[in-house]
Amino acid sequence: MALSKKPTTGMKDILPQEMKIRDYVISVIQETYAQFGFTHIETPCVENIENLNCKAGGENEKLIFKIMKRGEKFNLETAKEENDLADSGLRYDLTVPLVRFYSNNVASLPNPFKALQIGPVWRADRPQRGRYRQFYQCDIDILGEASNLAEIELITATTTTLGKLGFKNFEIRINERRILKAMAAYAGFEADRYDEVFIILDKMDKIGMDGVREDLINHGFEEASADKYLALFSGLEEHKNDGLKYIADTIGDYLDADVKDNLSEIITSVEAAKAAAFEVVFDPTLVRGMSYYTGTIFEIAIPEFGGSCGGGGRYDEMVGKFTGQSVPACGFSIGFERIVLLLLEKGIVGDRLSEIMKEAADERAKGKQVLVSRMNKNKKFQKEQLETWGYHEFRDFYKEALKNG
Amino acid sequence: MALSKKPTTGMKDILPQEMKIRDYVISVIQETYAQFGFTHIETPCVENIENLNCKAGGENEKLIFKIMKRGEKFNLETAKEENDLADSGLRYDLTVPLVRFYSNNVASLPNPFKALQIGPVWRADRPQRGRYRQFYQCDIDILGEASNLAEIELITATTTTLGKLGFKNFEIRINERRILKAMAAYAGFEADRYDEVFIILDKMDKIGMDGVREDLINHGFEEASADKYLALFSGLEEHKNDGLKYIADTIGDYLDADVKDNLSEIITSVEAAKAAAFEVVFDPTLVRGMSYYTGTIFEIAIPEFGGSCGGGGRYDEMVGKFTGQSVPACGFSIGFERIVLLLLEKGIVGDRLSEIMKEAADERAKGKQVLVSRMNKNKKFQKEQLETWGYHEFRDFYKEALKNG
Repeated sequence: MALSKKPTTGMKDILPQEMKIRDYVISVIQETYAQFGFTHIETPCVENIENLNCKAGGENEKLIFKIMKRGEKFNLETAKEENDLADSGLRYDLTVPLVRFYSNNVASLPNPFKALQIGPVWRADRPQRGRYRQFYQCDIDILGEASNLAEIELITATTTTLGKLGFKNFEIRINERRILKAMAAYAGFEADRYDEVFIILDKMDKIGMDGVREDLINHGFEEASADKYLALFSGLEEHKNDGLKYIADTIGDYLDADVKDNLSEIITSVEAAKAAAFEVVFDPTLVRGMSYYTGTIFEIAIPEFGGSCGGGGRYDEMVGKFTGQSVPACGFSIGFERIVLLLLEKGIVGDRLSEIMKEAADERAKGKQVLVSRMNKNKKFQKEQLETWGYHEFRDFYKEALKNG
Repeated sequence: MALSKKPTTGMKDILPQEMKIRDYVISVIQETYAQFGFTHIETPCVENIENLNCKAGGENEKLIFKIMKRGEKFNLETAKEENDLADSGLRYDLTVPLVRFYSNNVASLPNPFKALQIGPVWRADRPQRGRYRQFYQCDIDILGEASNLAEIELITATTTTLGKLGFKNFEIRINERRILKAMAAYAGFEADRYDEVFIILDKMDKIGMDGVREDLINHGFEEASADKYLALFSGLEEHKNDGLKYIADTIGDYLDADVKDNLSEIITSVEAAKAAAFEVVFDPTLVRGMSYYTGTIFEIAIPEFGGSCGGGGRYDEMVGKFTGQSVPACGFSIGFERIVLLLLEKGIVGDRLSEIMKEAADERAKGKQVLVSRMNKNKKFQKEQLETWGYHEFRDFYKEALKNG
């Protein structure tokens, strides 16, 4: 009869302190995106199993929490495999449900349709620290807008939201699937192996140019192609302020001039309209995993947070594939859980700092001379220096603050 | 490859117009309950299957959406029944998860703990018009407060919220499980059949006194007991303003005086503190289904909406049963989906009314004499009357407004 106290494996209870931050982030998101004309919608958390297995979910389709059929439809005797017993599952993202929502309700929706979704998704991933099997996603999407107005609106709205949440000095990295392809074509890779090339390219920030070259050759790509490909990226280092032009000039006819102009216009317009402290950076190593992207792709990089903190892109063929009617589409997903985590850590360090200042004041009231100082990386040297200035009692707070964070 | 456009059976897409109202209701709820000191928390939508089958869910335990085990743990060959293949399920209410949450996190929570939860729950009910298999619940609960301060706070906070949402002239019906039991004891029913008696009593508003009497006798209860029981309720009709005192006086020693005083104090205090137009009414026919209630029970009745629009009560034994440590608890669940439905209907009628007034103005501008009038039930007679006054062209808007609602 005793209840098991812990949440189910890989999921978590949200306590009042974190909930306050979540509610705050949601309110800023709702308010800001509404100002940009996005309307809030919601789809059920449960989707038909066929929709979840539609091939648009990529690797996530292996991670579905499947829901069992009920009543007469549940037949253990005739069931040959897992899927005979399931009729639905928990959504693993908000994109597949959005496309279904759009085709179900298109007659009652404005065109273009600008949607905001905030809600939980589920992935039966191996549990690991800081990653949970239920987590919130927050997506904005524009359906029915073929021009780069969609990208400009999505990026401007998202960066404005990040600015309001107190983030600065972040980057929006941007690329184009068609530029990725043109670069691969220029290098001489076969078209049917582009995706393999991009998976290796995606590791650039971890393994570097030499690592990418080695990996390409290990995968059986020609050395000449690998070298020609990597020359593009090393050449780019000398053209940091003009990377897009440099790539376009170098690969010439492999790239349609419109594609370059389109991307260039997005970068210029977003920079011109920006309401937060960030840079838009052309990054030809940006790949983004989902195979449904057809054009522009982008990602948020926040310095306090290693890795991406959200991203998106254009997926013009997805709606058509599922509904038979071609509808251009572009979306941007903000990394809700990561943002909450960053704000939560900031908050805790902030609280801890108040405590430290209070403790210093108490010691000073007792007549002691107290210095409050940020710890250097070389702690030993810092202590030795402080000792030469007469300080002889040390309290190590920073680690504790980090530990609590 | 084609996606099925419809949401999964019994669930629904939420379109922008309804979503606006939902967001508005949630913001009023969050703001008002925060003013009363309730802190927002969240539990995962998925709970361990053992917790869901803990007997505290009543009939809802038959309606669980069960989630299949994954990987090696899913073994079709050794599975003998449904439950061998499921390890978790979607929560069917917010009370069972709250009790688990409380026992998991009690060390980090204030005492008493005042919790606000808003979120979806799932029940695999037979689909029917206006009832969905995924719907939002909105609960406030106070854990660790044994006195009637809990009831007073819960009712005052909830009625203030309803007032802010524009509801008036509603009723809070209130009763006590211990009064229910004392009345049954006074009538001479056997203690182990009280629940049977209450299930029949619960039908009073549908089948009336005579129906309840007949039903009791058909269930094998003694005629003398049935008559003595119903005399209490018929006697109450002459004591509408003083029902609690009348019942207490009549049944005498069967009821502990403290129970009467406790309930009386709740009613007086809520009336004194009220910030909305409503009445607290003692209703000894109020039963509330869940067997976990131990004391006060209450329900919201909104005149525009037949039936209950939320309710709750005291469940002092539930936490102890599951954690071994006795903790008094009391909760109030506001009927979120019904409130949204009412506001949605009001909104549409409101919008429609503006259109009607505009149309009337246009006709008047053309020189016509126009009367805008609410339609009577006897439409034919109303039209005949209007014709005698010279009106000869009729437009029937109300039905249309209703149809759209």
